[in-house]
Amino acid sequence: MDIIILTVRQSGNRKGPAADLVQLYIERTSHFHPCKWLQVRSVDEVWAQREKPASHLILLDPRGEMRTSEGLAETIGKLRDSGKRTLLFAIGPADGWSAADRDRAGALLSLGKMTLPHELAAAVLSEQIYRACTILAGHPYHCGH
Amino acid sequence: MDIIILTVRQSGNRKGPAADLVQLYIERTSHFHPCKWLQVRSVDEVWAQREKPASHLILLDPRGEMRTSEGLAETIGKLRDSGKRTLLFAIGPADGWSAADRDRAGALLSLGKMTLPHELAAAVLSEQIYRACTILAGHPYHCGH
Repeated sequence: MDIIILTVRQSGNRKGPAADLVQLYIERTSHFHPCKWLQVRSVDEVWAQREKPASHLILLDPRGEMRTSEGLAETIGKLRDSGKRTLLFAIGPADGWSAADRDRAGALLSLGKMTLPHELAAAVLSEQIYRACTILAGHPYHCGH
Repeated sequence: MDIIILTVRQSGNRKGPAADLVQLYIERTSHFHPCKWLQVRSVDEVWAQREKPASHLILLDPRGEMRTSEGLAETIGKLRDSGKRTLLFAIGPADGWSAADRDRAGALLSLGKMTLPHELAAAVLSEQIYRACTILAGHPYHCGH
């Protein structure tokens, strides 16, 4: 199962320490699943990714469910075992997802009650995806923190 | 009011993108309050910092209250207005705070349900402190995200 982190951003690049963190965790996650980060310019491009066969899309949204790291690992494990081929996580535009986007997505996930800037949210998400992979693999990373 | 972020870590240094993020947000926060990051080797050193006159200590702990960014801003604003001279936020050792530490602290704060590595938690905390300062100052940063 491929894992793709999508961030919707009209402008700006992916430089700076938060972007470096995302790259670092994506590299580590790649030991478990092919993983990449795509920065897209519009929500339509998120839905275009969703067209991939056997894909599942999770939108990051404050209305979503807050999960523990173990809970997110369980979700990822179930999707993998159900035969999904691509798991997409998408961080929305600055003004958030529309109600229609939220209805259309497979699931909503919240990282917490605090508002995070775009790339810091991507850093936290990418770390949690890596952590989930280590939990599923019985790798000691999660126990060390 | 001075703001100090304390991280308890037996070993290791503060290099890498997560540490760079903490430094970046501390620098930005310094426009509003003197702010620094102290890495200490033991919990005793946290309590030594608490000896400063008119100080208030908030421990980061999963049992703590989850706050919105606006809620954290309100807390910081009230402490500032009540005449506190030093506000300490402390991220504990890998095995967490003891029950005695939790009882002794002024307050517990949780960043969310997910387990974060030490320095990523420090990055999120430092961003939230900066964000709180901008909310209190009516600075547009918070509205842009």
